[in-house]
Amino acid sequence: MIKRLAIIGVGLIGGSLARALRAGGAVNEVVGCGRDEAHLERARALGVVDRFETDPARAVEGADMVVVCTPVGAMQQVFAALQAGLEDGAVVTDAGSVKGEVVHVARAAFPRGTGHFVPGHPIAGTEHSGVEASFAELYRGRRVILTPTGETRPDALARVAAMWVATGAMVTRMTPEHHDRVLAATSHLPHVLAYALVETLASGPDRDEIFSYAGGGFADFTRIASSSPDMWTDIIRANRKEVLAALDHYLERLMRLREAIGTGDDAGVKARFTHAKQARDRFASGGGGGK
Amino acid sequence: MIKRLAIIGVGLIGGSLARALRAGGAVNEVVGCGRDEAHLERARALGVVDRFETDPARAVEGADMVVVCTPVGAMQQVFAALQAGLEDGAVVTDAGSVKGEVVHVARAAFPRGTGHFVPGHPIAGTEHSGVEASFAELYRGRRVILTPTGETRPDALARVAAMWVATGAMVTRMTPEHHDRVLAATSHLPHVLAYALVETLASGPDRDEIFSYAGGGFADFTRIASSSPDMWTDIIRANRKEVLAALDHYLERLMRLREAIGTGDDAGVKARFTHAKQARDRFASGGGGGK
Repeated sequence: MIKRLAIIGVGLIGGSLARALRAGGAVNEVVGCGRDEAHLERARALGVVDRFETDPARAVEGADMVVVCTPVGAMQQVFAALQAGLEDGAVVTDAGSVKGEVVHVARAAFPRGTGHFVPGHPIAGTEHSGVEASFAELYRGRRVILTPTGETRPDALARVAAMWVATGAMVTRMTPEHHDRVLAATSHLPHVLAYALVETLASGPDRDEIFSYAGGGFADFTRIASSSPDMWTDIIRANRKEVLAALDHYLERLMRLREAIGTGDDAGVKARFTHAKQARDRFASGGGGGK
Repeated sequence: MIKRLAIIGVGLIGGSLARALRAGGAVNEVVGCGRDEAHLERARALGVVDRFETDPARAVEGADMVVVCTPVGAMQQVFAALQAGLEDGAVVTDAGSVKGEVVHVARAAFPRGTGHFVPGHPIAGTEHSGVEASFAELYRGRRVILTPTGETRPDALARVAAMWVATGAMVTRMTPEHHDRVLAATSHLPHVLAYALVETLASGPDRDEIFSYAGGGFADFTRIASSSPDMWTDIIRANRKEVLAALDHYLERLMRLREAIGTGDDAGVKARFTHAKQARDRFASGGGGGK
């Protein structure tokens, strides 16, 4: 049971966490924190938080669990700002989509070390954002990746894992570096490709018509490309090295496929399509998870 | 009312057309045709066709409407094979995903000209295939593009349009060339990109793990990449020129985005993401259609 939960950044992710823990009776009191009072007032009106502060140090006073749900690019400042109010024994975690940079800035911002800091990433979300879009079931059956470092205390890790389990999520762990490589491939790269496709079509002469005749497949791409540009610019920036590596691997494969198409090597085209389908079908039948 | 409908190639597309016309009372008798008798027998057992033939010329005997639902690469042979049985006054149409090549091979295969041939393309489908996956509602609210040429007779066009309207589809028309350019961008290119992504990830060292941690966005790509490699190789081959043009436009944009990411030009990255999102949101709010 969490006695007092402080959520810094009360949007879809933080709001859904608060709702899930409340619904499961796993938290006593929720304090929200953010820069926009009107937004926090809505969170209170919706019953997502009990009260709110705009100063992180005040928000974390008396909290035994602090969850930072801001963009990755804002975390160093938030970590630094909350130190003055942090209780002995409080555990801090985050929900950032990139983990290497978060670990790096946490080391700079936590004067007493990062033993009580547990880097985390819930693999969940919708194309909507904001506390109004939050709901208690967001994490049910979804994966949450925790990326402890050599400094992370086992009891802090256990408390954060227990929090996510209470939301219905499946908790797994890996190193921050491994997380960033896996997510670059499975999430960051697909977003880059989808944004580039929609941008390409939006720049063509037939754009109005093209959007209205969107055929099989295209709607999926456009949905991905409706995600927040601010958030995704921040993610790509924070995971630049791994995103570039994944993008370059992709470009190499795509250029080979382009060559097969351009030279009329239909057997080569089919072999590549078949390889992809077989891998996908293995994945689909073997379970694997989430959105 | 269609008196006798001949469907050459009784799979998801042809089977769903037969089911929809039957459900709407818009057809009297349905004759199926294909190479695999066991498959045709299943179509009969499912009530999709009343009877079947394996010879296209026999299948079209007495039919007032003939719909060719085979892969584009098989159409020249099918068009030639059905000539001997074709009645005066019968209308022939097709459901191929590429229209320029279909028009081209029809001109070679129809000895009496293509006045009674109406090239068509229903923009519908699922990731499943085969007559077992067919259902009467597949075309409801979906677009069907008819691409008449200068030779197409208006009465033939009207009869094919009426058939598709009876399935609940929205019928529009454009030239074959325009169709192939629009579909290259909205459907063929996205499939190429999705196959290339899944193939890239399936070739990496972390592949098992990567598929199991598939995060936001990736599942959409993998679903597209589970489409039939045979069918998509055929489509890419038949629309090679337009697919290459669309792919090259895409590569140009993607390389510019890669450069912005690689040089740390985050404002440039954000501008591109924002452009894409705005275009997508205009599309989503303006309606536009289908899957």
